[in-house]
Amino acid sequence: MWEHIYQAIDELYEKMVETRRHLHQYPEASFNEEKTAQFIVNTYKKLGIPYESHVGGNGVIAKLEGGKPGKTVALRADFDALPIQEENDVPYRSKNEGVMHACGHDGHTAALLGLAEAIIPHKEELPGTIIFLHQHAEEYAPGGAKPIVESGALTNVDAVFGTHLWVNAPTGVIQTAKGPFMAGADRFEIKIQGKGGHGAQPHQTKDAIVIASQLVSSLQQIVSRRVDPLRTAVLSVGTFESGTTFNIIADSAKLTGTVRTFDPEVQNLIIEEMEKVIKGACTGYDAEYEFLYEKGYPPVVNHPEEAELVLQNANKADASLTTEEIEPVMAGEDFAYYLLDKPGAFYFTGAQIPDHYYPHHHPKFDFDETALPHAAKTLFQSYISYQEKQGI
Amino acid sequence: MWEHIYQAIDELYEKMVETRRHLHQYPEASFNEEKTAQFIVNTYKKLGIPYESHVGGNGVIAKLEGGKPGKTVALRADFDALPIQEENDVPYRSKNEGVMHACGHDGHTAALLGLAEAIIPHKEELPGTIIFLHQHAEEYAPGGAKPIVESGALTNVDAVFGTHLWVNAPTGVIQTAKGPFMAGADRFEIKIQGKGGHGAQPHQTKDAIVIASQLVSSLQQIVSRRVDPLRTAVLSVGTFESGTTFNIIADSAKLTGTVRTFDPEVQNLIIEEMEKVIKGACTGYDAEYEFLYEKGYPPVVNHPEEAELVLQNANKADASLTTEEIEPVMAGEDFAYYLLDKPGAFYFTGAQIPDHYYPHHHPKFDFDETALPHAAKTLFQSYISYQEKQGI
Amino acid sequence: MWEHIYQAIDELYEKMVETRRHLHQYPEASFNEEKTAQFIVNTYKKLGIPYESHVGGNGVIAKLEGGKPGKTVALRADFDALPIQEENDVPYRSKNEGVMHACGHDGHTAALLGLAEAIIPHKEELPGTIIFLHQHAEEYAPGGAKPIVESGALTNVDAVFGTHLWVNAPTGVIQTAKGPFMAGADRFEIKIQGKGGHGAQPHQTKDAIVIASQLVSSLQQIVSRRVDPLRTAVLSVGTFESGTTFNIIADSAKLTGTVRTFDPEVQNLIIEEMEKVIKGACTGYDAEYEFLYEKGYPPVVNHPEEAELVLQNANKADASLTTEEIEPVMAGEDFAYYLLDKPGAFYFTGAQIPDHYYPHHHPKFDFDETALPHAAKTLFQSYISYQEKQGI
Amino acid sequence: MWEHIYQAIDELYEKMVETRRHLHQYPEASFNEEKTAQFIVNTYKKLGIPYESHVGGNGVIAKLEGGKPGKTVALRADFDALPIQEENDVPYRSKNEGVMHACGHDGHTAALLGLAEAIIPHKEELPGTIIFLHQHAEEYAPGGAKPIVESGALTNVDAVFGTHLWVNAPTGVIQTAKGPFMAGADRFEIKIQGKGGHGAQPHQTKDAIVIASQLVSSLQQIVSRRVDPLRTAVLSVGTFESGTTFNIIADSAKLTGTVRTFDPEVQNLIIEEMEKVIKGACTGYDAEYEFLYEKGYPPVVNHPEEAELVLQNANKADASLTTEEIEPVMAGEDFAYYLLDKPGAFYFTGAQIPDHYYPHHHPKFDFDETALPHAAKTLFQSYISYQEKQGI
Repeated sequence: MWEHIYQAIDELYEKMVETRRHLHQYPEASFNEEKTAQFIVNTYKKLGIPYESHVGGNGVIAKLEGGKPGKTVALRADFDALPIQEENDVPYRSKNEGVMHACGHDGHTAALLGLAEAIIPHKEELPGTIIFLHQHAEEYAPGGAKPIVESGALTNVDAVFGTHLWVNAPTGVIQTAKGPFMAGADRFEIKIQGKGGHGAQPHQTKDAIVIASQLVSSLQQIVSRRVDPLRTAVLSVGTFESGTTFNIIADSAKLTGTVRTFDPEVQNLIIEEMEKVIKGACTGYDAEYEFLYEKGYPPVVNHPEEAELVLQNANKADASLTTEEIEPVMAGEDFAYYLLDKPGAFYFTGAQIPDHYYPHHHPKFDFDETALPHAAKTLFQSYISYQEKQGI
Repeated sequence: MWEHIYQAIDELYEKMVETRRHLHQYPEASFNEEKTAQFIVNTYKKLGIPYESHVGGNGVIAKLEGGKPGKTVALRADFDALPIQEENDVPYRSKNEGVMHACGHDGHTAALLGLAEAIIPHKEELPGTIIFLHQHAEEYAPGGAKPIVESGALTNVDAVFGTHLWVNAPTGVIQTAKGPFMAGADRFEIKIQGKGGHGAQPHQTKDAIVIASQLVSSLQQIVSRRVDPLRTAVLSVGTFESGTTFNIIADSAKLTGTVRTFDPEVQNLIIEEMEKVIKGACTGYDAEYEFLYEKGYPPVVNHPEEAELVLQNANKADASLTTEEIEPVMAGEDFAYYLLDKPGAFYFTGAQIPDHYYPHHHPKFDFDETALPHAAKTLFQSYISYQEKQGI
Repeated sequence: MWEHIYQAIDELYEKMVETRRHLHQYPEASFNEEKTAQFIVNTYKKLGIPYESHVGGNGVIAKLEGGKPGKTVALRADFDALPIQEENDVPYRSKNEGVMHACGHDGHTAALLGLAEAIIPHKEELPGTIIFLHQHAEEYAPGGAKPIVESGALTNVDAVFGTHLWVNAPTGVIQTAKGPFMAGADRFEIKIQGKGGHGAQPHQTKDAIVIASQLVSSLQQIVSRRVDPLRTAVLSVGTFESGTTFNIIADSAKLTGTVRTFDPEVQNLIIEEMEKVIKGACTGYDAEYEFLYEKGYPPVVNHPEEAELVLQNANKADASLTTEEIEPVMAGEDFAYYLLDKPGAFYFTGAQIPDHYYPHHHPKFDFDETALPHAAKTLFQSYISYQEKQGI
Repeated sequence: MWEHIYQAIDELYEKMVETRRHLHQYPEASFNEEKTAQFIVNTYKKLGIPYESHVGGNGVIAKLEGGKPGKTVALRADFDALPIQEENDVPYRSKNEGVMHACGHDGHTAALLGLAEAIIPHKEELPGTIIFLHQHAEEYAPGGAKPIVESGALTNVDAVFGTHLWVNAPTGVIQTAKGPFMAGADRFEIKIQGKGGHGAQPHQTKDAIVIASQLVSSLQQIVSRRVDPLRTAVLSVGTFESGTTFNIIADSAKLTGTVRTFDPEVQNLIIEEMEKVIKGACTGYDAEYEFLYEKGYPPVVNHPEEAELVLQNANKADASLTTEEIEPVMAGEDFAYYLLDKPGAFYFTGAQIPDHYYPHHHPKFDFDETALPHAAKTLFQSYISYQEKQGI
């Protein structure tokens, strides 16, 4: 029924590639995406679609009201780049020293803009409203999603969908999960304040290395003993720094680490138990501590029905697409904030270049541009199938 | 100058052996030494030396005032036996089933009674006063020394000496230390109260085995980190009992153990630190605990000057004797209480039977009776040299 | 299309209850189910369905060939009871002292026999072959499923389905999972052989309590560090026994515990890592160990497509039924062996008596008999929908 | 009998102060003491005492043969300074930028040179031979004592005495111990090589922080469990460095620390046990390690009889002196090497300035110059009493 739209998208393929390559050459790091935002604004101006800029920062939101009644569905593309020096030798290589679209956000933007252009002629046939949600600053906490949500710009939105071009999956594969999909990634810092002294006089000290070492061991018990074994959680200590020289007992020790969870209850339980365990380690030695816990983006937890829509209908968007329900990945995404606010789903659009695999955030990262229409089509299909599900 | 006394002791050798063997055949366990006490009383009656019985229990104290001015010196011999079935096949084998003089207290008593008999004819030559301190119940805490001290019977005593026939040293050797000589030996019990549950549901429990295991590790840090490395201390956990079956998480765990120290400050420090460490282990898990610490006999800490008297003068008592300043031993003795109250020293009188070595408290324990006069002579010499040291 | 079968089952409700109550009164413990097996045999004799008895022990397998071509599907019901003294005061209370159907296997058998009786008149309409798989000894490892599989009796079977009446779910609810559904539950035993000694002489020992305590802590790292956080695993130490008295350092320590997993790879990884960790703990102390690991039943891992059949079609069997995809439970089942051999699924048939909830294996356990037809109908539906899925 | 010598020393007091202040103004750091050595050489030239320079480096050895038969006794004074900027405001303040006699070696040298000058007129009365052993490089391992011993210069020496001016004791007090007196101080470095990885993927790593933390805990057991409680030992980890950022699991960890002992057997036991414990920690994780152990100076273990000579006879050297037998101190000294080779003793000569107490190695360190004759006299007395003890 929407074949003409998908065809229109395909016809815009060269345009999308061009847009993507333009953006790729002029990447801007998180929170500094002024020119990229302007580029997006200019596109909507040209298309004659009303938009609002500077939403929650550099965000741009365009709004296309269809000719038929229906729900309001936001489709999100992020557009910030990373502080990485590109190492690819391609014609569209980054021209901004030390900044690179090393995660594919250039593609997200190109696909969403392509979609806008493809559907504008068919506006009157469309049910409800499409919100083109161009988000800045996904890569750098506290991110752009949160202020956009807080700006109220999405108040009237009924559902939100988004995708990430994903080089860990082959082109043609759409992946998602009906529930936890991407992890919440937090950072913690623990400072143990003992009492230093001469290496030969341990009894006059509170040996910070001994205290912190025992703490590292005790922290292992949080995952092994205190978290429901059916829940996923990781607690890793990444750094341990203590002491100045071999024959002085260290007065303090500093640990930093990360906690990954998919469930705010588990996250909060872990924080609580960490506090207890740290307190215990210090109590045993009469030492002091500081415990700093910074919650990162929350986990991306898809709404099962909306994720199901993606899984069930992707191949209606493009017959070449297959779908996979996958296990959650431990990486994070601030798309999470939209899903805490509204129904919706986030999914991966496979975009691996077979003989050029470099993971996201790698200086040689690149993705398969033939996946751009897949992203555009599946976003549109998500919007449509959401309407259909409501009986529209 | 006192050669005639030492000669008199030698002449009583057979008598001392006889006394010892009699006592050996009729051993009485700690706090049940009625007949032994009566035997001692009868001896002093016969010797015409005034005595007091039932001192602090079954203790007997006889008092011989010399004809010359001087200090009052107590010489101590303990007389209780052990609940051990003798396995020696000797004519003087224990006739009391399940009770045995397996530590040599029969010999201590025989030597002290022999000394009394040897010196009574020379009473007028003697300076000051000799207290023959026959103590019950050394083997079983709270012991006999403490109530004897508390009875006030030793109020006027100036110094106390005592010896232990010692099969870990060859006959002819006198051993002591100028300071800590025998350890304080305490007992502790720790009960961890966690919360049990199904082996597959650790998050609903407070795993007592995990808590107590971590505690055992943390307790190691008390000796390694919190006690002055120049001080001696041992903390050993002897038993760890927890759990009923493999697939149930245990709700409680019980540890028992011992602490050995030579210094009340270290002992108290350890108690304090244990409390802290246990509290820390439980805090980390929100668990409860009971901590019971029973102080045993305090360490035997010799007064250096009195110990020096023993070391310097033993061979005046018997030219065949040599002395050794040894490192403290970890065994305990309630002679400790006398030394907390009065100056004095405790020492070992070597009594090893070369081809029959069984440690103290062994069912085949026996000692070399030729050491009996050594004990009697050195006790007398201690008394005499203490007087001399005072310029008497 | 199969409404008449479901109606026939409903009409046999009283008969199923009668059968169940009969079996309930004459329970037989695992591996001793001779009379129960005979009862089953007698039923198939009466129904004129060919059967084989003594399959892999007391197992009974009946075989009904339908009149139409199709696949061979086994429907399993177990029939052993538990060594528990019943505490219910019901007319059908167990008459065998100390033995009780406290898990609902009486109901499983009654439902499967009821199903057989209900369909025999409609034999000619049925596609393929139904295998009525009556299994003995589910409750007691090594169980009955394994020898039945090994007997070859299921060689020609294409798929296997089974259900458990489940008092943790309300009557009318069918629960299963598309993958890991019930845990593998293993038992381990670790013996540390150190070297004992006097509580005051730790340096002459290899303190088994210290070694084993550190081991308990280190074992926590297996789940926290060595198992993929997206995989489920539990490792619990259930008992820790060591030492004889407070002042003797223990020469050995014994730990027992359980491991729960849903994935043989994880299970094997854990065994391997345990060996490493134990070896490490002993290496550090030059101690010896014995490590005994007894694999219990493997995890019940449903085949996703067959589980999906159960979830999608249960309400065709009975419109009153709803289905739930649930998280795995940590309990075990030897149905696991069938699923390692053949495609299939295991599911729970809700059977909670609202005001009489006692968990499985409780002396007051009982289930809602109105769930018996649910079990019979869904087993039939599973068989049918499996045929349909094959295009039959 | 040697009163005239002691009087001669007293008469040289001003000279000794002058020498000391000269040396103090021109300090030279360890292994760079050319001018200081030359100063010493010049003194012996003037005194007409034969000497050898450049012994084992910058060492100077002078030899005074007495007129009477006797033993050869070496008296040692070290003469190197420290890389410290002096903060005292005194007329004799260091004129060499960044170098300071902050330990009192200037005083040692002044006292020994003073002694030489005092006794040269009385040469004929003296028994045996006095070796004036001026040692360089005490402060910086491997030190000067070892090469001097290895040079063979002391082959014919019978005994060695030395003293350290000691601001931790009041002037007038001589301190030593009959046995272990100063600790052996060693350095170790442990590198754990695990395998790094993403903070969310612990199962693909060998977490170096977890391994090293457990190791720190296990190392505590060496002192608490494996060293005889009557022996002194300290094992302190001074630094723990691992990891680069909070969300990366560290691939390696580095620990450095110190071990202090008084007994080579204990030292070797600790090295052996450390190896075992480290190996155990790595075995449990299949990780690799490097263990580097650098023995520092051995402990200074006095020979009891020679220490006794110091204690018994110091007040013959100067009636104002008192002696104390003290517990060992944890600091180190390369005098240790002489005592491994020859009988002898090292002792402290109290030199505290009551209202100016700064510890050795402090930029404001200074000592009471009235202690200079104490050092000279007691060194002479040690030499004399050693002769007397041999019946000379």
